[in-house]
This record gives sequence, C-alpha cells and structure tokens, in this order.
Amino acid sequence: MDMATVVKHMAQEAKAAARSLAVLPTAVKNQALAGLAQSLEQHRELIQEENQKDIVEAKKQNYPAAFIDRLTLSDKVLKSMVQGLHDVIHLPDPVGAVTSMWRRPNGLLVGRQRIPLGVIGFIYESRPNVTVDAGALCLKSGNAVILKGGKEAIRSNLALSRLMAQALSEVGAPAAAVQVIPTTEREAVVELLKLDELIDIVIPRGGEGLIRFVAENSRIPVLKHYKGVCHILVDADADLEMAETICFNAKVQRPGVCNAMETLLIHQDVARRFIPRMFARFREAGVELRGCPETCALDPQVKPAVATDWGYEFSDLILAVKVVPDLEAALDHIARYGSYHTEAIVTQNYGHAQRFLNEVDSSVVLVNASTRFNDGGELGLGAEIGINTSKLHAFGPMSLEELTTTKFIVYGSGQIRQ
Amino acid sequence: MDMATVVKHMAQEAKAAARSLAVLPTAVKNQALAGLAQSLEQHRELIQEENQKDIVEAKKQNYPAAFIDRLTLSDKVLKSMVQGLHDVIHLPDPVGAVTSMWRRPNGLLVGRQRIPLGVIGFIYESRPNVTVDAGALCLKSGNAVILKGGKEAIRSNLALSRLMAQALSEVGAPAAAVQVIPTTEREAVVELLKLDELIDIVIPRGGEGLIRFVAENSRIPVLKHYKGVCHILVDADADLEMAETICFNAKVQRPGVCNAMETLLIHQDVARRFIPRMFARFREAGVELRGCPETCALDPQVKPAVATDWGYEFSDLILAVKVVPDLEAALDHIARYGSYHTEAIVTQNYGHAQRFLNEVDSSVVLVNASTRFNDGGELGLGAEIGINTSKLHAFGPMSLEELTTTKFIVYGSGQIRQ
Repeated sequence: MDMATVVKHMAQEAKAAARSLAVLPTAVKNQALAGLAQSLEQHRELIQEENQKDIVEAKKQNYPAAFIDRLTLSDKVLKSMVQGLHDVIHLPDPVGAVTSMWRRPNGLLVGRQRIPLGVIGFIYESRPNVTVDAGALCLKSGNAVILKGGKEAIRSNLALSRLMAQALSEVGAPAAAVQVIPTTEREAVVELLKLDELIDIVIPRGGEGLIRFVAENSRIPVLKHYKGVCHILVDADADLEMAETICFNAKVQRPGVCNAMETLLIHQDVARRFIPRMFARFREAGVELRGCPETCALDPQVKPAVATDWGYEFSDLILAVKVVPDLEAALDHIARYGSYHTEAIVTQNYGHAQRFLNEVDSSVVLVNASTRFNDGGELGLGAEIGINTSKLHAFGPMSLEELTTTKFIVYGSGQIRQ
Repeated sequence: MDMATVVKHMAQEAKAAARSLAVLPTAVKNQALAGLAQSLEQHRELIQEENQKDIVEAKKQNYPAAFIDRLTLSDKVLKSMVQGLHDVIHLPDPVGAVTSMWRRPNGLLVGRQRIPLGVIGFIYESRPNVTVDAGALCLKSGNAVILKGGKEAIRSNLALSRLMAQALSEVGAPAAAVQVIPTTEREAVVELLKLDELIDIVIPRGGEGLIRFVAENSRIPVLKHYKGVCHILVDADADLEMAETICFNAKVQRPGVCNAMETLLIHQDVARRFIPRMFARFREAGVELRGCPETCALDPQVKPAVATDWGYEFSDLILAVKVVPDLEAALDHIARYGSYHTEAIVTQNYGHAQRFLNEVDSSVVLVNASTRFNDGGELGLGAEIGINTSKLHAFGPMSLEELTTTKFIVYGSGQIRQ
C-alpha cells in the first residue's frame, strides 16, 4: 500500500471508532486508561529499548543534548506518564453533559449537550510522552485520534501505540481509537491533511515551520498551538517587590517553555527604581538583557535591542526590555508584538488592572501573577493537550471540555414550524 | 492596485478596526445599528435602483425566476432587513460576559470571559439581504467582517456597504468594521483566504462548489455552513397523527431550505398503516416520492429510489422514503447518509427517544418536532448568521454568542509558579 492509502485507511478506521467512542461509558474509558497505566509499568523495559534506538539514532545525527533529553523516556518520565493517566482517570467525563436547557414559548425544551469532536489529527514534535498524554485526553473526551509525532521518536511512539491499542482492545473498545502514523515521511501528513471528510480538526503543536506547513496544506480546520511571546508590564503603581518576584519567576523558572516571559515592559515612572535590583537578579541567574535606548541609558551594561528582538520568542535566558511612557503605549506594544498567548500586568492601580484585562487580546491575561500560569493544570482544567493560540473553538489551554463541542437536543410534543 | 493589494489592505483595516470594536460600548454598537435601520428606510430608492441593475443583468444572463426572486430587494425584504436590525439591537451583547469563575488553591481567581473572534471573512451566495444581517451580527458581537457576496448581487451589496460604513462613521466607530469586497472576481477570495495573519475565521455559506473551493484554498480556519440532508424516523411507537403533521411540515412548508426533510425513514411495523394517509397528503401537495423496494411494494405509485437519492439534498418537493427494520438500522442509515445537520425521531418510546438523542451526530437532534426548527431564532438564540455543519467552535446555528470566543482572565496577588 502507498502512504496515501495507509493514511486514508487509518482515518476511515478512526471515523468508525469515533462512532462507538462517542457512546462508550465513562467506566470503560477509565478501565482502558488504567490498563494502559499498568501496561506502561509492566513493559517499561520494552519501551525503553525502543526509545534507546531512537536516542542512538538522534545522537548519530548530532542532535543537541537538550533535544536528546526531551526524547528520553527515563524512569522518571515514564512514572509521570503513568501518573498523568491516573490524573485523567480522575477528571470528570465531559461527554453527555447538558450545559444549559431552556423552554421555548411553543413548549419545545432545547438544550446544548456536550459531544466529542469526532476524529482529531494531532501533529507534534519530538517528546514521546506527549503520545500517551494526548491519546489519553482524546480517549477520555470520546474522540478518536491519529497521532503524528516527531520523526526522531518514531520507534518510541510505535511501541507506545501498540500498548495503547492493546489496552483499548482488552476493554472491548476499538483499537483504532488511538493510532500512530507508522512512518516518518512528511508525505503522510500531507495526505492526512486532505481528509476533510474523515477528520474533524487538526492540532499542530510545535515550531513555526510545522505550524505553517500544516496551515498551508490542510483542508481540515486547524487549531494552531503556536509560540508564546509573553509580555509583563510593570506599571507605575506596581508593588515593586511583587513585580520583581513575578518577573523573575516568569523569565527564569523555566525559560524554554511557551509561557515564559520574553519581553518586559516597564513604566517610565518606576524604571529608575525597579531596574537596578531586578537586573542584578537577572544577571545573577545568567539572563542576557537587551534593552530599548531608555533602558540602556539607565543601565549601560544592557545590550541594545535590535528590531527583531521585539516579538521574538527566545525560549532561552534572554529578555527584551522596554521602558514605556504609559499604559497606552504598553497596550500598543502588545497589540503589535504579542502572540495571543499570555500577558500580565503588575499594578496596584484598579483602573489599569481592569483595562489591561479588558483590552489585551491574549488567551490568558493576568494581574499580579506570573505568565507561567498559562497551563491547563495550573488554571484548574486538570490537564492539557496544548495551548491554542487561534481564537477559534477554545482559545488558550485545551483540556477535556475543550476537546468537545455541543449539539442541540430538542424535546418536543408534536411542534411544527408556522 | 492589484486585487491582492486591495484585499490585503481591507484585511489590515479590518484588523485595526477589530481592536477598537472589541471594546466599543454596547450603546454605541446599537446606535450604529439603529442609524443603519433608519438609513435603509431613507435610501430605499437608491438601494432598489442599484438592486434593479443587478436584476436586469441577471435576467440578461437567463437566471431562473427563483434566483431572481432571491436577488430582489423588494419593499417587503427591505422591511424585514430593518426589522432584523432592530431584533439585533435588542439582543444582549455577549462581549465581556464572564461565563464562569473559580478560585484556585493558591488564591488565583480564574475566569473565562467572552471576547470577539476578531476578523471574520464571510463568503456567501446571491441574497443581498444577508449582507446587512451578517454585518449587523458581526458588529454587535464586536467582530470586524469582510463580506464577499455572490457576483450577481455586487451592485446591491456595494450600495448597502456604503450605508453601513456611513452608519458606523456617524457614531465614531471604524467604518472598516464592515466591508464588502468591491469586485466579483473569484481571485479576490483566493487572496482573502491566504491572509491567516489578519483574518481569524472564514465562514462560507452556500453550495458544494463554494464550500469546497474555500476549504481547499484557505489557510484560515473554515466553519463550513454546508448542506442539510435531514432525516425523520417514524418509529414503531409513533403517534401516527403527530408523525404525519411533523413530516408534512418538515417536507412541504418550505422545501428549498436546508432544514427541510429530504429522507423519511419508517419503521416496518407501522409502514403499512402510516404510508397511505401520509403519501396521499404528500401527493396532494405535489411531493414526488422515491422509495426503497419495501415502500414501493406498499405503494406501487412510488417511483423506485436510485442509489444517489439517499443522502441527497433535493431542496425541492422530492422525498426519499425507506422502510427500516429497527432503530439500529435507522441510526446506521443516518450515520452513513446524514450531513451532520438535523435529524428527528417521532416516537412515544422513551428509550428510543433517548437513544436517538444520544447517538445521532447532528447539530440539532429532535424528538417529536419538525426538523424546520434548526434555526437560531426558533431555538431561542435570537438570530443566526448561518448553520455551522463543522463540529468546530459552534456546531449548529450561530448567533451572537457563537461569534465570540473566551479568554482566561486571572486576578492574582503576587502568585508565582512553584
């Protein structure tokens, strides 16, 4: 079979599976997840053997150490995958919930009921633990999923895929509910993206190249899980000690993730007071600072920022800093350079806090808290498949409810349209 | 300027307008709508003059009478457009509503707040009244919209567009909030569909050709407003008098619309009793019947259905009829031939009603009511821009709330991530 046929066949199987998944009892879905958790523990060696082959190959190809690290299914990572499955088991099943119901003047009782989306195509990069996380969330929300991970993790992903299929079969659920595309060829993705009759949404999670490739080639609606260029504004009325703690956390705690701060905006009235202590702390942590002319004037050690530093996702211990004359200028800067991901203001000014919350067009907008809270778990959604930076369907972190849609159910007693 | 430049410029203006629209007070939006309503009345003659030019051209090109009818902005249609504007004025503004809010263990107060989608591309066919309806719904929900109507209505649409721009300017709102693409070239749509940095969603509403063209050429997420192949199942336990009333209404009241019944499924236990009276009534109303072999055996006057009659949207006084052995067979038929639009069951059997509601994968599923109720107004949403047949974002009729998304707002007091 050629690749187009393989992928189409997988999608047909997924669509058939989706129909039974949509009405699969919660208990059965949880049993499958529990079975998988057990299986991951029992087959640890087998998984790590396959993973080792991926690692050897990646090392041969001179991937950097950080990449190898993300690729590795260590005991610790496997343990967290098992824990993740138990977390999903304990989350409420969103399917079937009637979110609201009302009576029409003609007596019709109209409700909106949560249903699965159907078949999801999930295209992501490198980390093989995502394969199980995403599979579990899709299954629990009643969706079939076709997974296409990074080519470097293909052996790990296929090993995990076999265990998932087995766990599904053992409880009588369709094994095609969670499938991994068994190839590293990009052509498979191209074929997948054509199947708008079989696949309901595509979620790409990864770098600019991947996202653009998917958006350009897809006939299926795409929910982009794209970069985070997060801004924090330290306002004139900020509690500067709080601002220092928040900014440090947002930049330094985990600089490689999408909800880390990339640009710091400082109100000119507090720049002189705020900068010395804040920058000293950043320097101590190894953060490279790139500033606007005003910033550099206040701290000559700061490297002048170039035009491309604004709106850039460094994903590293690098921070762009700009002094702004007022809230308006900060809002303009964010509107121009933000990535619809996460923005925060540190302020004690009530009006400024409310304006910032209202006017900033990002999936998560915070007052007096770190941008690092843009995360399904941290916000109370229980888990996440990723952070949607397109406004469609579910803006921001997507968990179980966000993997569903609603249909209208109508209880009548013979009503007809006049 | 070439077409690509024109369309890109319009989209840039729309994006800029969207930022101020998102925070435009409800009162100002309502003022603009009221101004437009008044303007439509004042400039009736001007609108009808431009509309007449479209009609003359369409007649020259030998469009059928039904088409000319839909193209015509009669006094009656203009009056209903004005009424439609007043209806939208009276609908609650969805923007800013916090749909839920909760406290996290660390004290963060997290809420989901409704915000506009941003910039909408709306691509539709022929009827020029849709230009105003869609413009009004997008404006009230805080979205900027770029409208591309049918080429046959271009003069009417541009006349309406000028009045809309004027009504916006008069209240100090950006005129670029509602724009009509000033050309009939399809190339303009192709250019529009490339602008994924500027436009948030595309809604195509029309025939198969249009929908496919948009889905294939768009880099922007598409919410398909596609055909309705609506089924009604008359179950073994149906109240046959009620079934007759509902089926007649669903087929005959307005056969050309997407929520009209196209296929009637009849449980074999009641076929012999139900068919004679039902078919007599259909024939009296001029409905052509095309049946499965069992149907034809029970009523030899029925024309045998061919394979393509199943799952076909006749949009006319034609009905496909199939006798089914049980509920399961009906569900299978709908799963295979349905269009995710509207399905109804007529039954007095509690279990069957609940199973049908649960298992049928359509945007609206009804018990003992006509399929004709799949309509934003009839279901209580107040109005609709169309019926979304893709499951993404808002499955089914889309009104004001469905033209918004939510962002997370977070009130903190210095929280950082551990």
